[in-house]
Amino acid sequence: MSLPDPFPAIAKRVNNWGRWGEDDELGTLNLITDEVVREAAATVRTGERVPLALPLRADGVQTGVIPGRVNPLHAMVQINQELFGPGTVATSDDVVTLGLQAATHWDALSHVSHSGRLYNGRPADSITPHGGAAFGGVDKVRHLVSRGVLLDVARAKGVDRLPGDHAVTPEDLDEAAEFGGVTVRAGDVVLVRTGQMRRYLEGDRHAYAFPSPGLSLRTPEWFHAHDVAAVANDTLTFEIFPPEVEGLWLPVHALDLVEMGMPQGQNWNLETLSTACAQRRRYAFLLSATPEPFVGATGTPVAPVAVL
Amino acid sequence: MSLPDPFPAIAKRVNNWGRWGEDDELGTLNLITDEVVREAAATVRTGERVPLALPLRADGVQTGVIPGRVNPLHAMVQINQELFGPGTVATSDDVVTLGLQAATHWDALSHVSHSGRLYNGRPADSITPHGGAAFGGVDKVRHLVSRGVLLDVARAKGVDRLPGDHAVTPEDLDEAAEFGGVTVRAGDVVLVRTGQMRRYLEGDRHAYAFPSPGLSLRTPEWFHAHDVAAVANDTLTFEIFPPEVEGLWLPVHALDLVEMGMPQGQNWNLETLSTACAQRRRYAFLLSATPEPFVGATGTPVAPVAVL
Amino acid sequence: MSLPDPFPAIAKRVNNWGRWGEDDELGTLNLITDEVVREAAATVRTGERVPLALPLRADGVQTGVIPGRVNPLHAMVQINQELFGPGTVATSDDVVTLGLQAATHWDALSHVSHSGRLYNGRPADSITPHGGAAFGGVDKVRHLVSRGVLLDVARAKGVDRLPGDHAVTPEDLDEAAEFGGVTVRAGDVVLVRTGQMRRYLEGDRHAYAFPSPGLSLRTPEWFHAHDVAAVANDTLTFEIFPPEVEGLWLPVHALDLVEMGMPQGQNWNLETLSTACAQRRRYAFLLSATPEPFVGATGTPVAPVAVL
Amino acid sequence: MSLPDPFPAIAKRVNNWGRWGEDDELGTLNLITDEVVREAAATVRTGERVPLALPLRADGVQTGVIPGRVNPLHAMVQINQELFGPGTVATSDDVVTLGLQAATHWDALSHVSHSGRLYNGRPADSITPHGGAAFGGVDKVRHLVSRGVLLDVARAKGVDRLPGDHAVTPEDLDEAAEFGGVTVRAGDVVLVRTGQMRRYLEGDRHAYAFPSPGLSLRTPEWFHAHDVAAVANDTLTFEIFPPEVEGLWLPVHALDLVEMGMPQGQNWNLETLSTACAQRRRYAFLLSATPEPFVGATGTPVAPVAVL
Repeated sequence: MSLPDPFPAIAKRVNNWGRWGEDDELGTLNLITDEVVREAAATVRTGERVPLALPLRADGVQTGVIPGRVNPLHAMVQINQELFGPGTVATSDDVVTLGLQAATHWDALSHVSHSGRLYNGRPADSITPHGGAAFGGVDKVRHLVSRGVLLDVARAKGVDRLPGDHAVTPEDLDEAAEFGGVTVRAGDVVLVRTGQMRRYLEGDRHAYAFPSPGLSLRTPEWFHAHDVAAVANDTLTFEIFPPEVEGLWLPVHALDLVEMGMPQGQNWNLETLSTACAQRRRYAFLLSATPEPFVGATGTPVAPVAVL
Repeated sequence: MSLPDPFPAIAKRVNNWGRWGEDDELGTLNLITDEVVREAAATVRTGERVPLALPLRADGVQTGVIPGRVNPLHAMVQINQELFGPGTVATSDDVVTLGLQAATHWDALSHVSHSGRLYNGRPADSITPHGGAAFGGVDKVRHLVSRGVLLDVARAKGVDRLPGDHAVTPEDLDEAAEFGGVTVRAGDVVLVRTGQMRRYLEGDRHAYAFPSPGLSLRTPEWFHAHDVAAVANDTLTFEIFPPEVEGLWLPVHALDLVEMGMPQGQNWNLETLSTACAQRRRYAFLLSATPEPFVGATGTPVAPVAVL
Repeated sequence: MSLPDPFPAIAKRVNNWGRWGEDDELGTLNLITDEVVREAAATVRTGERVPLALPLRADGVQTGVIPGRVNPLHAMVQINQELFGPGTVATSDDVVTLGLQAATHWDALSHVSHSGRLYNGRPADSITPHGGAAFGGVDKVRHLVSRGVLLDVARAKGVDRLPGDHAVTPEDLDEAAEFGGVTVRAGDVVLVRTGQMRRYLEGDRHAYAFPSPGLSLRTPEWFHAHDVAAVANDTLTFEIFPPEVEGLWLPVHALDLVEMGMPQGQNWNLETLSTACAQRRRYAFLLSATPEPFVGATGTPVAPVAVL
Repeated sequence: MSLPDPFPAIAKRVNNWGRWGEDDELGTLNLITDEVVREAAATVRTGERVPLALPLRADGVQTGVIPGRVNPLHAMVQINQELFGPGTVATSDDVVTLGLQAATHWDALSHVSHSGRLYNGRPADSITPHGGAAFGGVDKVRHLVSRGVLLDVARAKGVDRLPGDHAVTPEDLDEAAEFGGVTVRAGDVVLVRTGQMRRYLEGDRHAYAFPSPGLSLRTPEWFHAHDVAAVANDTLTFEIFPPEVEGLWLPVHALDLVEMGMPQGQNWNLETLSTACAQRRRYAFLLSATPEPFVGATGTPVAPVAVL
């Protein structure tokens, strides 16, 4: 069983299986070499830090449509508890329950499979209820610090946000790179801004979710050609949704995660970064976005920070 | 009601209430200026990244003794679910429940109160079950990137780990700084290594928990004098436990968090970093350790990374 | 500080504080004597059992409006796990997170306070984050089996469901008792049917939630006069909502739980029971509805069964 | 692949697949007819109610050995929250996370599979992460009220508790029935007391868990011959553990749940019931033990009550 055209042909062109060895679980993150990180650190000019995560809260971006993907539920289990008797120092503790893909997050490579396979040809059934992802779990990514590049597609086009039916194409990415005066290099983490996050920030999570602009199924080849390490954007769906080709659902997920082995970030808030980059006319920065090491997890909340 | 001597006198000397304004919720993190961050980025030499977080798993460091502080419980809510019909692209999703202070974490300023007060004199009862910490929640810290300095007390003393009854003193910190050839500066995040983490890594979480070496109640004055932004170490208790003065429980917590307004990190794995710093003979690096922005939370898991 | 009229006067008339001793935590459940239970068992005629609980599922009755009251989230933590090696007997395990008041549930006496007091005059602040309700927790109710009586107000009025602005009055209860040919006695658990549950069963949880028919603030005196042990109905709000008197919110909750010490049940599905009672022309039965003994909890899911 | 001897031969003798139709998901609970329930109600003599559930709390019976089976974690999400403004009626709400098999519980038929099959020959892979048990979920049991019979094996033998290596045999069950002066009939729910619960009640959950007396693999034939509807006992493991035959793990689970389709109850506290039955010299009673209807769940906490 295979996915509809043009998926198979693109898949063949971007496939990275075996590129970093048959046991590799990191995929394109291998492209973040020590040298890339040294150069990333050298991009820091002002020292300003811009956080890219949405607050983790019960009224987060999830609308309840995706089964099991629950917004964070926070509860106090101790409040000013004087553990050692009356009048002693008091502590407060909290507990949370959350869907790992619910908020600003990384998809681990194991988040998606197709035709029974994960990245590097591993069997999809290596993910089990007890233990989760034995292969490609987010815990395998021990650190994620690199050069970040903002491709501000919306600003390059002079709009606040792209319309809901806009598929971001390779040409759009080139245009945004040129607008930003930046050249995407091997090992970069590319942040693609559509402006769709404004819908959520304005209070309408349903409009944010769907329909959504997002990456075209033509973009994985662009990412592959540029040897990008990872890509994140400011939408719930990452890719254009509903999809471009009838019956071909989530093709970008399958191409990025399964074929290329490239992690995807979703629900990143790029609004402040957009303003900061425009003001400084610099679209490259040090990006720190290390996953929380949940063992066997197929995703993780992340609190990314751009250092300008 | 006040805490036993010598707490009140020390508290007076290290108190930062009002130093950054009466509305301040960041405390010593204010010391991380853009300039500090620029210089932190400039410390990067090799580009090597060393992760400092323990894996988030059900058999984490918690033994069950601290009420409500549960190790992470991970469950899959979808495994290779073909959301759009048979043969389509499949996704996997996870959910977790965890105590925010259970693993490698930051204590938010609101984590501790004494005598009815939080940092900056705010009332302790501003923490509520519904909403958590209205003041000093971990979500107020939007980013935490600075220069990190490893004070490897154990290695400076030529031991694998300090004994369980060793209170790390200001003199120990000076000794470790000298050993590392490093000068602690304003805005630094100081990592204090005791080697206690080895007990957990060797498989004995009970021995790891207690008794534990840790910071002496004399150290807050040292941190205050050096204008340190934050301190983390490789123990469950952070401070020496059982405490140095009978009946004076958790004095370091109260001095750091309440009086100084300085975040504390616990359960950080400094073993690999210790080796890396020793090999390079450099004990300063870029440290990225941004909290997950759980709204109203008094702590957060964190995945810190040192970039050497 | 006191609640608006006519609350204080009614409260005085229905107050049970001290009636069963100053340490009592059971309230009107004390009225369920062994004799009441013997007679309840004697009401069984056919042996038919009618379940009254809604299924516990992620798309339950909660709409997200009540903070923290989450529908059940179910996840598998083991699926056909061959714990003792390949080919051995396999087990499956699940974990859930749920709001204790989210589905078909009992309110414990500690669920509501007013003017700083719980039932029997206990201080409201005896409920703490660590430990929950020290007084009046649902775990104090060790068993709840008694005679159940259905007062089918909707059917007595010849309608499928009462309109959203219908406050069920003492006269309505008398009418329904007469319609059912039943006399409410001391120790009975009274089930009041409004038909509002049909809205949820038809798929509209928002219409189910609000506006909702429910009990009038005049009913607690009726329950008090009849020495009812507990009352449950088929609505989310239990009482008429929005309330009858402007600015007097949740008066029935406060009268029942705080003043009388009478547990309340909500979101009970009385549709099948309504049909069964009508067919048999008998409105009394054995009711078994023991709370799950969550220690310190202010509510609990319950799976009530009527035995006809 | 099949399980070791003597499993296959016993399985053949007790197998109930198809007995109640090929679509049946209730198994031996079909034996609880209206008539059985009428007779069960008629056993009530005194009206005394004896609860059989352990309190649901963080320091429950689970020791952490069984992966994912977590003791209940209770947290308050609202405490005396004045939802409608200062001085209004206040409410408290709670949330829990718990393993459904963690405390006093029922195993659903779907809890166990062997050789790829569930009860009635259904495929084991009908249990999925998203949705849980499509077949044999605990939600399919809408009510569970019947005659309960206590077989007090420990008391019949004149001991407080059976030793850890005692496998309860059919002869033991006969002896206890004779001791209790009771005849087990079709549709009965049989409670087998070993006294092992005393270990937990005395504070040693590890000793409670293992080694444990429990049912012999010879007992399923006894239950089958008596057409018992369900069986519960006062151990963590239900069956003797470690098992009687080397390499044959959990044979009783597989025989009861998969072959016979008979629900099992574990961690039931039978201590008070033991005393009550002995005093009254009556070992039959009305038992109410309806599962919480978690949709797709393979187990459920239950709060059983015996009415004497």
